[in-house]
Amino acid sequence: MDMDHVREYFKKDRLAAYLGIEIVDVSPGFATVRMPVQDFHLNAVDVVHGGAIFSLADYAFAVSSNSHGTVALAIQASIYYLKAGRGGVLTATSREVTRNPKLATYHIEVKDDQGNLIASFEGMVYRKQDPITA
Amino acid sequence: MDMDHVREYFKKDRLAAYLGIEIVDVSPGFATVRMPVQDFHLNAVDVVHGGAIFSLADYAFAVSSNSHGTVALAIQASIYYLKAGRGGVLTATSREVTRNPKLATYHIEVKDDQGNLIASFEGMVYRKQDPITA
Amino acid sequence: MDMDHVREYFKKDRLAAYLGIEIVDVSPGFATVRMPVQDFHLNAVDVVHGGAIFSLADYAFAVSSNSHGTVALAIQASIYYLKAGRGGVLTATSREVTRNPKLATYHIEVKDDQGNLIASFEGMVYRKQDPITA
Amino acid sequence: MDMDHVREYFKKDRLAAYLGIEIVDVSPGFATVRMPVQDFHLNAVDVVHGGAIFSLADYAFAVSSNSHGTVALAIQASIYYLKAGRGGVLTATSREVTRNPKLATYHIEVKDDQGNLIASFEGMVYRKQDPITA
Repeated sequence: MDMDHVREYFKKDRLAAYLGIEIVDVSPGFATVRMPVQDFHLNAVDVVHGGAIFSLADYAFAVSSNSHGTVALAIQASIYYLKAGRGGVLTATSREVTRNPKLATYHIEVKDDQGNLIASFEGMVYRKQDPITA
Repeated sequence: MDMDHVREYFKKDRLAAYLGIEIVDVSPGFATVRMPVQDFHLNAVDVVHGGAIFSLADYAFAVSSNSHGTVALAIQASIYYLKAGRGGVLTATSREVTRNPKLATYHIEVKDDQGNLIASFEGMVYRKQDPITA
Repeated sequence: MDMDHVREYFKKDRLAAYLGIEIVDVSPGFATVRMPVQDFHLNAVDVVHGGAIFSLADYAFAVSSNSHGTVALAIQASIYYLKAGRGGVLTATSREVTRNPKLATYHIEVKDDQGNLIASFEGMVYRKQDPITA
Repeated sequence: MDMDHVREYFKKDRLAAYLGIEIVDVSPGFATVRMPVQDFHLNAVDVVHGGAIFSLADYAFAVSSNSHGTVALAIQASIYYLKAGRGGVLTATSREVTRNPKLATYHIEVKDDQGNLIASFEGMVYRKQDPITA
């Protein structure tokens, strides 16, 4: 699979663009994405909203699970919030845990600028046979 | 607890505002929130992004768990994606499953305009003693 | 599907028998199972072991998801421990949340004799086309 | 903390003994446990029951989270079933992801004799101040 094609495909992801999430790196089964924290990511107690942290991790999950060139649909995800995110740039790294023709599982870590672990995320996709089309 | 105070407190939630998520109803341990689907909620295959669906459910989770007037912090959440969300208005309803002085658990359902179940979400909070301050 | 056939099929489940878990009721997409608590179900602090509570919930999950007559394999489960189980009979009730030809999701509640909620469980299966054979 | 004291404490875990699960290794925040597969661990399709795999992972979770010498109670766990377990010896290894005075999170992997990943498990405990007493 051509990784430029994967990056091109994800330009169509409007939520990621709206939240300011960018792909840093992608290779088969792996992805790193980043989100510079902005005011609109915050919740009522002025820390990064759980939904923003999830969306960041979820994007790493989506990019890595679609990196084989066929459409992968998220069917389940679990997130553990480990430390409040307070600003700077948050980074999510996804690695493929296992993959068969129908299902695949990914583990994602979200860290802040200082390398603190902010969240741990695990998710499963159902794999279709349709190619991703940029 | 005065529910107007809870609504006032959540006006400070900037991610919810940025994603167009609004409180429909809140009572102690319960909340209903809604999100009219917009183009920026979509992913690369033109359905509502998992991160947007999670953020909607998470907001119902936050409103219901803070409805007792003290700060509740999400520590874990699991989401099951059951059907693609394709437009219209999505609604998330949260109910308290159990609550003790330190921990509480909530179950949230996300439905579309036709009443189809889009996602099922369960989450746990750690309860602080600090009052929520609008 | 003949529910007697489902019950007959589950007689082959050796872990359930070994842990003293019995089917109370099964209908398409639903199941109720029970476990009279015995000393071997306890952990080091004398309450029912998380593994025993999970196994009880998991059995309700298995019976309900195989009740349509084709083999369903658990791919993911999340459990929330809400209250310690201290004895008597624990009962798990499973209901189908959604089902399509490939995937289905179930929600299970575990309660004690007094009706206290002990655990909440959600799980997903991958559905094969093979019939269950007693 | 004296690891012999932790091992002694877990001799009181009756479910682990009943299922034939043994501690291989324990150090602060880490644990490895094993389960030689026996007929009573199997389900109706002759593979290791999800409840047995969960119980194995859960025991590694319990040993590692109590290894600091104070009682840790499981509040939530998520398991991903990645491959069927078919016999031999299954081994679960737990590592502490994060820990603060009240909460801690662990990641557990279950592998078979050939090193195949059978399940991935993540769980959270609530930490009490009571010492574990063997």
